[in-house]
Amino acid sequence: MTDTHADADTAAQVETTATLVEALREDSPLVQCLTNTVTQNFTANAVLASGATVAMVDVEGEAGLFSGIADATLVNLGTINGDQVVGMREAVSALTESKGIWVLDPIGVGGLPVRSALAFEFLERGPTIIRGNASEIIGLAGGAGGKGVESAQSVDAAAASARSLAAETGGVVAVSGEVDLIVDANRTIRAANGSSLLTKVTGGGCALGAYLGAFASVGRGRGVGLLESVAAGASAYTVAADIAAENAHGPGTFSPLFLDALYSMTADDIRERAQFR
Amino acid sequence: MTDTHADADTAAQVETTATLVEALREDSPLVQCLTNTVTQNFTANAVLASGATVAMVDVEGEAGLFSGIADATLVNLGTINGDQVVGMREAVSALTESKGIWVLDPIGVGGLPVRSALAFEFLERGPTIIRGNASEIIGLAGGAGGKGVESAQSVDAAAASARSLAAETGGVVAVSGEVDLIVDANRTIRAANGSSLLTKVTGGGCALGAYLGAFASVGRGRGVGLLESVAAGASAYTVAADIAAENAHGPGTFSPLFLDALYSMTADDIRERAQFR
Amino acid sequence: MTDTHADADTAAQVETTATLVEALREDSPLVQCLTNTVTQNFTANAVLASGATVAMVDVEGEAGLFSGIADATLVNLGTINGDQVVGMREAVSALTESKGIWVLDPIGVGGLPVRSALAFEFLERGPTIIRGNASEIIGLAGGAGGKGVESAQSVDAAAASARSLAAETGGVVAVSGEVDLIVDANRTIRAANGSSLLTKVTGGGCALGAYLGAFASVGRGRGVGLLESVAAGASAYTVAADIAAENAHGPGTFSPLFLDALYSMTADDIRERAQFR
Repeated sequence: MTDTHADADTAAQVETTATLVEALREDSPLVQCLTNTVTQNFTANAVLASGATVAMVDVEGEAGLFSGIADATLVNLGTINGDQVVGMREAVSALTESKGIWVLDPIGVGGLPVRSALAFEFLERGPTIIRGNASEIIGLAGGAGGKGVESAQSVDAAAASARSLAAETGGVVAVSGEVDLIVDANRTIRAANGSSLLTKVTGGGCALGAYLGAFASVGRGRGVGLLESVAAGASAYTVAADIAAENAHGPGTFSPLFLDALYSMTADDIRERAQFR
Repeated sequence: MTDTHADADTAAQVETTATLVEALREDSPLVQCLTNTVTQNFTANAVLASGATVAMVDVEGEAGLFSGIADATLVNLGTINGDQVVGMREAVSALTESKGIWVLDPIGVGGLPVRSALAFEFLERGPTIIRGNASEIIGLAGGAGGKGVESAQSVDAAAASARSLAAETGGVVAVSGEVDLIVDANRTIRAANGSSLLTKVTGGGCALGAYLGAFASVGRGRGVGLLESVAAGASAYTVAADIAAENAHGPGTFSPLFLDALYSMTADDIRERAQFR
Repeated sequence: MTDTHADADTAAQVETTATLVEALREDSPLVQCLTNTVTQNFTANAVLASGATVAMVDVEGEAGLFSGIADATLVNLGTINGDQVVGMREAVSALTESKGIWVLDPIGVGGLPVRSALAFEFLERGPTIIRGNASEIIGLAGGAGGKGVESAQSVDAAAASARSLAAETGGVVAVSGEVDLIVDANRTIRAANGSSLLTKVTGGGCALGAYLGAFASVGRGRGVGLLESVAAGASAYTVAADIAAENAHGPGTFSPLFLDALYSMTADDIRERAQFR
């Protein structure tokens, strides 16, 4: 196990990211989102802006079927009501069967009992990607969670938890913070772009989950490893935030500029800006 | 049956559109929306920007009552959970009774079984307007649907299905695409404005359903035919998209500019830009 | 009882408002929102922009628990489905027990039976703050309500109803309109800023409910009276609207500029602009 990357590895990861940003527009994967009602709109717009297509089919009798059609599925536990939970269970069962790509966002896990139980249930089904802030990743690994949905912990404090979860699922864990940490059972990539304004827009993290699913799908189709694909997604997303922050005057104007950046950033934007450690 | 319009007809339709855009602000009809949670916010903002008022009363015991008060009601099947379906059935029953204006948006019909059954059930109640993309219109008419909520079919491929649905309901069918097709049992109007950015904003089609309902209401109050009113709405909506696209740098900045254009476009903007075929 | 304020009182209220706007960013209270799905996104963004944190934990088994952790809770009756009502009852019971700060927004009360029954039930539990438009305040006090969620009444017409509700609950009632009326059992403050564009953005009133809860929390922590804290919130919110309206070209561009103004307006902005009567 190594947690450091030589310059050559970093340069390769930048190039992978540049390639996948454009590949996403060519391949236009379909991302199915079972997610909270607070951030559905922003998540859908972020996915569309990136060049993918999106649907949010979370009804019983359709959610499993549709997850089988989709290229990636997001399961985000933000506002789980009874009907949606049924749809989520259908989707997770279908995806386990089909070995489809799915992302678990265990938002608020740890302190809140209903979603925690559901998060632990879904964890056992082996999500392809787990995305959360440090408190959530620690909480999902069985440690002390945070205060609600905001992270009270640093990303590095979640490194061991992330590693443990990745080993358990065989997938990748992405911890969002000032520097994002992306790990599988053996390796770590740190993506160091981003703007604090992204934390002032609701759904900044939720939409990232869907975006990472899209990258995992495109990467799989092009023979890129899961860790590298997810790290590329985390990097590209925060590069877009950097671009948006340059012209934003606050979180209100940041949000449309961020969507514009997801839509129009180029491979060269990635080459100039993406920072990995 | 004729599918062509002479120049005089086209000029009359432009003038009808110009008149109804301003009439909408004067009459300020109340549009009740039973719609998916992904696009409720954008739909409400589009209706408000246009000069109408909006409410989304979808609770059992209120949805039917309120649809009786409203000037037009949108029934959009995007994220139908159990509670909302009860409200939708109440609303549709009340509207059938009162002969009120209502719009059915059978989003995703065809491939997805739960919403398809509901769409066919509501189709039998004779919606005033059906709005969908080509795949949905074909699916609702019993043909092969699309992949999820994105259209895989061209508008012209849906012309026969649209005609057949209009004949069945006695209403109007609006097929959204690069050129919009608006048909009743005998006639066709094509509205040719629009920007591809509108397809990169979630709810671009959903909000149009509510907007068409508002136009149908204002048109009915002023003695304009249903086909002409709906075609006016489809045209005005896409003229606003044209205006917004001129200053947008992507879908993020397009969205607020589109709402501004719905809010401030004038009868002369319509006269200069609206294209019918 | 006095309904007029001397200049000295007005100057003191301006200074209280200036202080609390900055205190909100320092204290960053956690606002829990049980609110309608139409405006969750805008409400969350408004709270985040103001410097507070936000969560929307409305699930049975979590809503009560989380309201006990939060610094203020919004209960907004806009789109009450069965699951959310259970969460609301849990939250209101927990808050009654803990004497926590909570805001009741009885949106649409009066004409609509389900939410009216729920609003009357919650009224008996003594909300800290009630926020509504004039029709809703009149409806909640037992008078004739409005047409749906839009106010058909002037703020002054609701003054007696507001006073009566404040006397009944021991809390504060905020009536939104061209001039906002904020009353407790004995006193009245009028806040006179604001832009009509705020009424063209869905959630303008809903987000205010959450914002007032944040102000009440920060005020309580700093020994400011409830009436003064709520009036400060109503004023600051509408000052932000004034700032945004200066550069907006319609409701679409107004919305992000309003969030930016909530984010960046200073104590001096308040001193220059806030108007009380």
